[in-house]
Amino acid sequence: MDLNRHPAEFRRLVRRGDFRKPTAGHGGNHAQANLAILPQQYAADFLRFCQLNPKACPLLGVSEPGDWRLPQLGADLDIRNDVPAYYLYREGRLAEELESLEAVWRDDLVTFAIGCSFSFEHVLLEYDIPVRHIEQGRNVPMFRTNIANGVAGPFGGNMVVSMRPLRAADAIRAIQITSRFPGVHGAPVHLGDPRLIGIEDLQRPDYGDAVDIAPDEIPVFWACGVTPQQAILSAELPFAIAHKPGYMLVTDVPNHRLAVL
Amino acid sequence: MDLNRHPAEFRRLVRRGDFRKPTAGHGGNHAQANLAILPQQYAADFLRFCQLNPKACPLLGVSEPGDWRLPQLGADLDIRNDVPAYYLYREGRLAEELESLEAVWRDDLVTFAIGCSFSFEHVLLEYDIPVRHIEQGRNVPMFRTNIANGVAGPFGGNMVVSMRPLRAADAIRAIQITSRFPGVHGAPVHLGDPRLIGIEDLQRPDYGDAVDIAPDEIPVFWACGVTPQQAILSAELPFAIAHKPGYMLVTDVPNHRLAVL
Repeated sequence: MDLNRHPAEFRRLVRRGDFRKPTAGHGGNHAQANLAILPQQYAADFLRFCQLNPKACPLLGVSEPGDWRLPQLGADLDIRNDVPAYYLYREGRLAEELESLEAVWRDDLVTFAIGCSFSFEHVLLEYDIPVRHIEQGRNVPMFRTNIANGVAGPFGGNMVVSMRPLRAADAIRAIQITSRFPGVHGAPVHLGDPRLIGIEDLQRPDYGDAVDIAPDEIPVFWACGVTPQQAILSAELPFAIAHKPGYMLVTDVPNHRLAVL
Repeated sequence: MDLNRHPAEFRRLVRRGDFRKPTAGHGGNHAQANLAILPQQYAADFLRFCQLNPKACPLLGVSEPGDWRLPQLGADLDIRNDVPAYYLYREGRLAEELESLEAVWRDDLVTFAIGCSFSFEHVLLEYDIPVRHIEQGRNVPMFRTNIANGVAGPFGGNMVVSMRPLRAADAIRAIQITSRFPGVHGAPVHLGDPRLIGIEDLQRPDYGDAVDIAPDEIPVFWACGVTPQQAILSAELPFAIAHKPGYMLVTDVPNHRLAVL
């Protein structure tokens, strides 16, 4: 597999059913996105939720109602087929895992594409800042916190964060680098003592995998794109779709274009 | 005392002998500077030392040899009289505290004005980030570290850092803000465990005063303008002058002009 495959080529592979794995490391240096697909009646509240919680829910793109295209993120993009795995939620519970949305598509669905930390991890690695879960071949550890999200309509809940252990000098550099990328979660929301944000045990993440933390490292926490999935779950919508965590939408947007500086 | 007095007015007060105190909070929102005044024969090595150690020794201005003016930092500035207190070092030891350099001035002296954290503290306060030693009416706590300076000629030694305790979210914001000010020490060099940079006890600073640290706060460490004074001491020069720590040169340079972003 060519890791630097053009993102449109990579999406065609997914669309043909030839790629059903987590997307980390694929699509070259192009932004990957978290997905939320909701009936139009909830779209305005969800947009307000994203606006209220920009660190967890930085919007990269929003579709026209009923339109399965997202041309701003990829000319040929077909949101029904270009993600390796989808979760279908009914009444706030996971109902089905799907490989295509064609059978469940509705003409009132609105797609929200939300920035993903894969984008800034790519930049961290370019700056020789080690990313532990990549070194250890694991999924990033994610934790529910006691940081309340801003509430909009039925959407609320608490922030989910991802954690990367770093030596202090690298943590300072990582804060500088990720501050340049507000469209993909931006600067960390916390560092140091995890109990201050309601995390009891760093070796027991709520999502993803635990990673090793060295004695001279500090845990650094970024707002995570799983936050909107939590908000959708807790809203107990009759119908909602998201990507399967880790199985992201690969877009045509170069990560460097997301830098504000 | 009008804290927002024009810096030239403030310097005239000092020049007349009417101000003999630490300068924190004086001169309005204008940069204050650490001083090193050395015989010309050491100037090239000291310039290289500053270039090798830009976080500790960010140069705001360098005089012509023998010239007691520094017009780039203030049109009427008289480096012999505009600082409230000077230290004269001979053979690497403090020989005298002076209120004027007129009696000891030499036509081979070169003045180095080095950025001071007062500039970024002013900005931190504008952003509602608390600065503990200011809240507690104390001098900032400063510590010798085990971080070796780059060596140039006789100048070397270890970095001196200042410490400010901050809650994590404020620490992240302070990293962003101070990153904009590389001319006044820039981003921190360390945060968290002080032993990792050779500091045993935060309540026993090597210079300045101890401050309170709350349980939810992290110590954050910035390179400090006392570093060059340490380098000058350890170089055991026959003759060298510095400001008395805390008794700074108030310049005409607005702090905001030091922001690179």
